[in-house]
This record gives sequence, structure tokens and C-alpha cells, in this order.
Amino acid sequence: MKILVSYYSRTGNTKKMAELIAQGIQEENITCDLKEISQVNVDELLNYEGLIFGSPTYYGVMAAEMKKLVDDSVKHHGKLIGKIGGAFSSSGMMGGGGETTILSILQAFMVHGMIVVGDAVLQHYGPLAIGEPDEEVHGMCLKYGHKIAVLVKKIFGK
Amino acid sequence: MKILVSYYSRTGNTKKMAELIAQGIQEENITCDLKEISQVNVDELLNYEGLIFGSPTYYGVMAAEMKKLVDDSVKHHGKLIGKIGGAFSSSGMMGGGGETTILSILQAFMVHGMIVVGDAVLQHYGPLAIGEPDEEVHGMCLKYGHKIAVLVKKIFGK
Amino acid sequence: MKILVSYYSRTGNTKKMAELIAQGIQEENITCDLKEISQVNVDELLNYEGLIFGSPTYYGVMAAEMKKLVDDSVKHHGKLIGKIGGAFSSSGMMGGGGETTILSILQAFMVHGMIVVGDAVLQHYGPLAIGEPDEEVHGMCLKYGHKIAVLVKKIFGK
Amino acid sequence: MKILVSYYSRTGNTKKMAELIAQGIQEENITCDLKEISQVNVDELLNYEGLIFGSPTYYGVMAAEMKKLVDDSVKHHGKLIGKIGGAFSSSGMMGGGGETTILSILQAFMVHGMIVVGDAVLQHYGPLAIGEPDEEVHGMCLKYGHKIAVLVKKIFGK
Repeated sequence: MKILVSYYSRTGNTKKMAELIAQGIQEENITCDLKEISQVNVDELLNYEGLIFGSPTYYGVMAAEMKKLVDDSVKHHGKLIGKIGGAFSSSGMMGGGGETTILSILQAFMVHGMIVVGDAVLQHYGPLAIGEPDEEVHGMCLKYGHKIAVLVKKIFGK
Repeated sequence: MKILVSYYSRTGNTKKMAELIAQGIQEENITCDLKEISQVNVDELLNYEGLIFGSPTYYGVMAAEMKKLVDDSVKHHGKLIGKIGGAFSSSGMMGGGGETTILSILQAFMVHGMIVVGDAVLQHYGPLAIGEPDEEVHGMCLKYGHKIAVLVKKIFGK
Repeated sequence: MKILVSYYSRTGNTKKMAELIAQGIQEENITCDLKEISQVNVDELLNYEGLIFGSPTYYGVMAAEMKKLVDDSVKHHGKLIGKIGGAFSSSGMMGGGGETTILSILQAFMVHGMIVVGDAVLQHYGPLAIGEPDEEVHGMCLKYGHKIAVLVKKIFGK
Repeated sequence: MKILVSYYSRTGNTKKMAELIAQGIQEENITCDLKEISQVNVDELLNYEGLIFGSPTYYGVMAAEMKKLVDDSVKHHGKLIGKIGGAFSSSGMMGGGGETTILSILQAFMVHGMIVVGDAVLQHYGPLAIGEPDEEVHGMCLKYGHKIAVLVKKIFGK
């Protein structure tokens, strides 16, 4: 079982969140690859049981570089069914479009027939940082990694 | 393992969809209760592994009667974590707010920490009918029932 | 020209935001009525050039009490075309569904054929507070009131 | 006063809708430029009072090529405030993510502080075609062009 955490990041904030989520996954003893989105070949998506994508909040929707990979993934439409999807974002301000950015990624995963999960305690749609991730966001990202890893084990483990 | 299919319906279209989804669930040998939303006591939500809610498309958001139950469910916040959620809607026209109505229900389930799933082939966010459900929508509702039932078995079965 | 600011509030946070937005409107010399949502008769909606609704963030969607008025407004469907709509929310935490709550209101206004407006500097979809509105949110609410009032004057003034 | 209608299109369906919307605008005696998205220089956006963007429905979000221009437009953040925005989409099936694709464009425009408008009669968030635009969609696109043109005249005319 393997999970891919992929991100687009200019300031490093989204990258930092990605690293923490990847660490959380590994703490649950699931192999995790961490890649900048331009380093992901669309064929690789098939190799993972879970995909977690993170984008800065640009105009309330995932970054173009990430949407490009999503659009290219139509080549494998139908082959990602039943995989687990997650999303996170780094935003400039509260109410700045971070929730809709996360949801834009989750909606894309749903169109692929993937499974997504909310959170009753942490940020509900996925981890969201305002500016540089602080201690609280650190903890949220680790826990989000744990959670997705546990769900992958539950669904794909025997 | 039990699934609740609950609906609000004035014309009978959403109710018809609910009946078909319930039938699909039962065909997978999962017990399914089918209830009009006003007949659901909020405490009952705890008894199910899966919750599937359907609302007519009223102003692009689930009906007030359904939101009322969702708001009351705060009483059990944290106790629905990990359950499976699904949603469907009956709409007056294509592009009439049906997708956002379905998503309004799924977002509420995500805030509860529940698991939701998209579809790569059928309507992506959940079954959606325009007016009276036709043969195609019949098939989609049955398949949606199958799918949610299979996911409940995978996650909650041993 | 008149604007209605209506809100649902249990803790008083959303009410406080409503009062500030109403103050901002009045500072632009536009008459503003401020009403708790249950005090609004659906027929009154016709009397205003602008409608600004605020709800606490409950499960990522406007409160049931507000959706009830929206559902009842179908009685006047077509008569709100071209009016100005705005929305705001008070939420428990950042990433807690506040953006989707605001958008649920704006989507309802769009289904009515109304005009809505974003903000390039303040919170993009509408004012959003986390917990008790602080000084920064105070300023945002006042500015939002100004902005909607100015737009009403531009479209409905002669 | 000028409006830009821009689109991304592979099959020609979204392009056909763009042409009809442009025709509707011209019938209201407003100058309209019609451009494929890759032909739009980001600096040009400043020259228009209205921007109407159309994308195929790819994974429930505007196409990467369109998001690229939106991301680049950050260069002019704050300079599009108060302009009118519109959106449309061509989708493969009803419930296929067309509404969320339109909303992804409108949300981007709102982050720019732009004004958007729904429709009480036609498709509520913006014109949406399933496959090749039929006669009904033709009429909707023309009317949408009329409507945006009239709003531009109301707000920017003297």
C-alpha cells in the first residue's frame, strides 16, 4: 500500500504542509512518496491507493499546474475508482478561498470515483494554513496523514 | 450493518429515487430503512453505518426540513465519524442547482467526519434527476444503492 | 432605496456582524432594516433593492431557519431578479465551513437571478468571523456595508 | 464599453456557446471580442468592462489552460474590481460537474472583486450544455449575452 502526497508551492508553505502530512502517513507505517506536482507522471497515479494533493489558494481553485495533471489524468479515467483522495491548501487569509480550493481538488477526485473523507474536529474539508504553517497546523497535518493512512489500511489492507 | 435512506419530497420525485436507492442497497443484502426526513429522530442516526439523504433542488441547497435535522445532529457531533454518506437530488432543470444541492449534503456529512464517494461513470457527486425519474435515472439509483452498500460492507464488514 | 440585513444568531456573533454591516450601509445614506430572520415576512423581500443575509456556520451550509425563508421565497420567484445580494457568516474555526456557508446563501440569491459581488481585498466571498468578531472583522463588516450600499446606489439610483 | 468572451474548447461545443453569447452581446450594441483563451494576453483583461469565460467540464473545475490565465491575472489583482463576470460550460452529461465548473470560474471572478449575476429562469449559474448545444441552449446563450450586456450598460453607461 502506497500513498502519494503531491503539491505545488511557490513560497514553501504548501510544501511544508505536504512534508508534515507525508510524515504522518509514514508514522502509520504506510509508504509515502512526496513529489512536487510537475514531477508526477500521470501514469504513476495508478500505483497508489491514496492520493493527497495540496495547492496554494489561487483565486479559490487549485493552481493551474495541478489542474493540468488532473486534466491529463482523463487518460486513466475509471482506473482510480475506489482509491482514497485528500486535499490541503495554504492561503493568504482566512476567508480567502482556501475552502473552495480544497473542495476543487476533492471534487476532481470524486469525478474519478474516488473516496474522500471529512473531519469532525480538525479543519473539515482538509488541512488549511493561513500563511506559514504554525504549530497548530503542524499538528493538523500530522493527524491528517495518520487519518488517511488508517483509512487506506482499512480499505486496502486484508 | 444498516443504512438509512432519508428524503424530503413534495412531488414524489425525490421519494421515488429514495425507494430505488433503498432497493439497490437491499439487493446487496444490507438492511435499509427508508424514511421521510421528518420521521427521523436525530438519535437514530447513530444506529446506521451509512446515511444517504435526498432533497429536491430548492435554491441550490438542501431543503430547510433536511437542514433542520442536520443542524439538530450537532447533538451527536463526533459520533458519526467514519460513517458513509451519500446524497441525491431531484431538480427542475439541468443546470438548475442540482449539483450544488447534492454537494451541500455531502459537505455537511464531511463536517461530521464522514466518508463520501464520487462516481466515475454515473452522475459524479450523486444521483440527480430532472423532473420525474426516467429509466436511466432508475438504473443510476439502483447502482448507487449497490455502490454504497458495497462500501459499507468493505469498511464495516469483517 | 432600501437594504435588508437579516441574520440568524444564537451566540450573538452573527448578530454583531449584522449590526456593523447595517451601520456601514447607513453611513452611505441608504436606509437599512436589520431583522432577525424569523421576523422577516417573505413578502417584505420585494420591498428592498438589496438583501444581505448572515448565518452561523452550521455544517457548512446556512442555518435551517434561514433556508426556510429562502424556500418560502419561491412564492416570489422571478420578482427578485436584478436585486443585489450579499452574505456573511460567523464560524467556530478557520477552515470550518464558513466559506461554503456564505456561498450557500449567494447561490440561493443567484437562483433568484440576483447580482452578487466579491471582494479583492477583504474576505473574498463575504465577511467571515472566527468566534467573536474582533477589530479587524469590525472594519470588514463596515466596509462590506459601504460596498453593497454603493453598488445599490449605482444600479438603482438615477 | 467592451466585453470579452473567452473559451477553451477541444470538441467545438464550448466554442459554439461562446459564439452565441458573443452574438447576444452584439445584439445589445456592445462591442464584444471573442478569443480562444490562449490568445488572451493577461494585460488585455483591463480593457474590458465584462469578462465571460467558458470551459468544458473537466473534473468539475475549469480547464487548466483557463486556470493558467486566471493565475497569471494576479499581476493585475485589484484592477478588475467592479467589472462584470460571467461563465458557461459544456459538459458530457447532466450531473457531470458542469455547475461546479461554472462556479469555479465565478469564484475566481469574485476573488477579483468582480460582480456576477445568476438567472431565475435560465440555468441559474450560467449557460450549460450537455454535448452539442441544441436549439434550447442556443436561445439560452443568446439571452445570457443580452443579459450581461444590459448589466454592463447599466453599471458602466452614463
